[in-house]
Amino acid sequence: MSPKSIEQIRANCTKELKGQGAILPKEYFSQLANYTDENVTADVYGKGGALEEFEAELADLLGQEQCVFLPSGIMAQLVAMRIWSDQAQNSLIAFHPTSHLELHEEKAYQHLHNLQAIKVGEADQVMTLSDLQKMPSLPSALIMELPLREIGGQLPQWSELLEQVEYLRSKGVKVHLDGARLWECRDFYNKSYAEIAGLFDSVYVSFYKGIGAPSGAALLGSGEFIKQARVWIRRHGGNVFTSFPNYLAARKGVEEKLQRFPLYHQRAKEVAQLISSIEGVKVIPENPQINMFHIHFSGDAKVLAGRALEFAEREKIWSFAELQPTDSEGVCRFEWYVGEKALEVSDGEVERLFRYVVGDN
Amino acid sequence: MSPKSIEQIRANCTKELKGQGAILPKEYFSQLANYTDENVTADVYGKGGALEEFEAELADLLGQEQCVFLPSGIMAQLVAMRIWSDQAQNSLIAFHPTSHLELHEEKAYQHLHNLQAIKVGEADQVMTLSDLQKMPSLPSALIMELPLREIGGQLPQWSELLEQVEYLRSKGVKVHLDGARLWECRDFYNKSYAEIAGLFDSVYVSFYKGIGAPSGAALLGSGEFIKQARVWIRRHGGNVFTSFPNYLAARKGVEEKLQRFPLYHQRAKEVAQLISSIEGVKVIPENPQINMFHIHFSGDAKVLAGRALEFAEREKIWSFAELQPTDSEGVCRFEWYVGEKALEVSDGEVERLFRYVVGDN
Repeated sequence: MSPKSIEQIRANCTKELKGQGAILPKEYFSQLANYTDENVTADVYGKGGALEEFEAELADLLGQEQCVFLPSGIMAQLVAMRIWSDQAQNSLIAFHPTSHLELHEEKAYQHLHNLQAIKVGEADQVMTLSDLQKMPSLPSALIMELPLREIGGQLPQWSELLEQVEYLRSKGVKVHLDGARLWECRDFYNKSYAEIAGLFDSVYVSFYKGIGAPSGAALLGSGEFIKQARVWIRRHGGNVFTSFPNYLAARKGVEEKLQRFPLYHQRAKEVAQLISSIEGVKVIPENPQINMFHIHFSGDAKVLAGRALEFAEREKIWSFAELQPTDSEGVCRFEWYVGEKALEVSDGEVERLFRYVVGDN
Repeated sequence: MSPKSIEQIRANCTKELKGQGAILPKEYFSQLANYTDENVTADVYGKGGALEEFEAELADLLGQEQCVFLPSGIMAQLVAMRIWSDQAQNSLIAFHPTSHLELHEEKAYQHLHNLQAIKVGEADQVMTLSDLQKMPSLPSALIMELPLREIGGQLPQWSELLEQVEYLRSKGVKVHLDGARLWECRDFYNKSYAEIAGLFDSVYVSFYKGIGAPSGAALLGSGEFIKQARVWIRRHGGNVFTSFPNYLAARKGVEEKLQRFPLYHQRAKEVAQLISSIEGVKVIPENPQINMFHIHFSGDAKVLAGRALEFAEREKIWSFAELQPTDSEGVCRFEWYVGEKALEVSDGEVERLFRYVVGDN
């Protein structure tokens, strides 16, 4: 099917499984015009305006001393890794084999910062203390991604997390939190964000996924760390003239969305249970730890995605037009991030959709 | 005076000398909501939406094959330099001693990209062919900034420009246009933007200065160059989830503002002539080539700025609260970028202000 007609089928749908719904520019501008007080001024290169207030709020919320808002998580984490490796005079860093730095950043850590990486742990599991103990040499810093996106949003238990951070600290390794989806895991740990993020030497959080802003990220740490981070963000080209369109949307999203995550998580558990009984469907993890999980299908990706498209055309419920490969032959996957949209789809619709996709109808 | 009271004096002013006026976030969101058609969708990581249309428009306008929108000029130029130096396997680049890369980017070209730079020409003059011929070795690429911001927006003559580009080409050196203020120089050359920017191997233009968007830049060049640029922009962290708040503002600015630059230039020439007759004031260049020039004052920077503040408090016309040092002892400078705001200030007001500042009242 041509990309054009796929787009048309999608545009005709009235419901969809994933996420918070597409941002419509005109709607975004109107909503932000309503949200923004007329006294709010624009920051100039990160100074003034409502930006410094928002950064202070985030530092409080996440149990860190200081915060800097910046364009993207890629930039945030590279900057953190460069600071820790320069400080330790050790260009070795460490992360999970599925880390964003390894898979989705054109290997910037190598090409831009001349860093080398140790991959820690198994690709389909969360890191363990024993994985850390088996590192062939000590890195300057280790990135811990909570939750781990590429394996369906899995998390270590709280006691394991504490043990791992303590071990790394005892070895002089800085521990950085890849919190791309940190907002999503408060429910699982039943801890405040400050308790979770406060464990780490540096923290990155994102504002476009669950929070719904167009883009933007924050990097947090000690005063000295953030001072250095601002220099590296400038070098990356991330200290822009004014970034209020993004941070006002981020602030609005944080104010409105954090309280919604428990609802999303509840819904994720419901739909996961519902579809896990369908033959040819495997939910990973079986009991979702956050409002996201992966669905592994046994079957041909093109055939299954074709059925999902037929279903979308007929029933006006959008799911997917393609499926990702997995390491197992004949198994493909769908990542379901449960947000506002999934609250609008009924159990019956979910079940009918997935039965149709696997050909059980 | 405390920063607070300076801010209050500024907030009470009804007129100001420089620029397009501060962007007020609430007003920005309302204007963009009006400007944006309800059918406009958001790009996703630079694909789709109105972004690709805008990039194609810019490529046409600037006489280049392809274009990529990105967060900042710092990122755009570093990416260009890295591509040209990798291609030539020569880490030597060249630019004017006052280049943005040397003065305002925390030496990112060194720390992030391991490039070395030759400074070409005199700090207070535009580059000449003889400056180029005197380079001790050949760089992979040379940055030509048109107009040169740090010396009051000066430009080489068209014939000189052609000669210089031709010379560099004959030596195998790529020529990159730092067009941070390119929009401002069409009037001087009396050429189309495509004729000017089309001379170069790669081009950067900005959207927040004269154009009035919150932030954003574009990088242009051949299809192969832009393909590589997209990889490096991703590595820099500049390929964000969606950037419509910036590129829609940029597109609106380009549509509305390009036709205004001749008016700004005319006003710049008028006010420059008016104040150049005042004792203790020197206008650089004497006859502004674009809608920007520098004013050099003989006298103590703090005393002069103090008088400008008094004037602002009494007459509600904002000029400056501080002056920049120059290389000459006892001489300080003010950069006047003439935009919409300067059209609202009368000749009499301009003259009274500058006479008051130098103590001639």
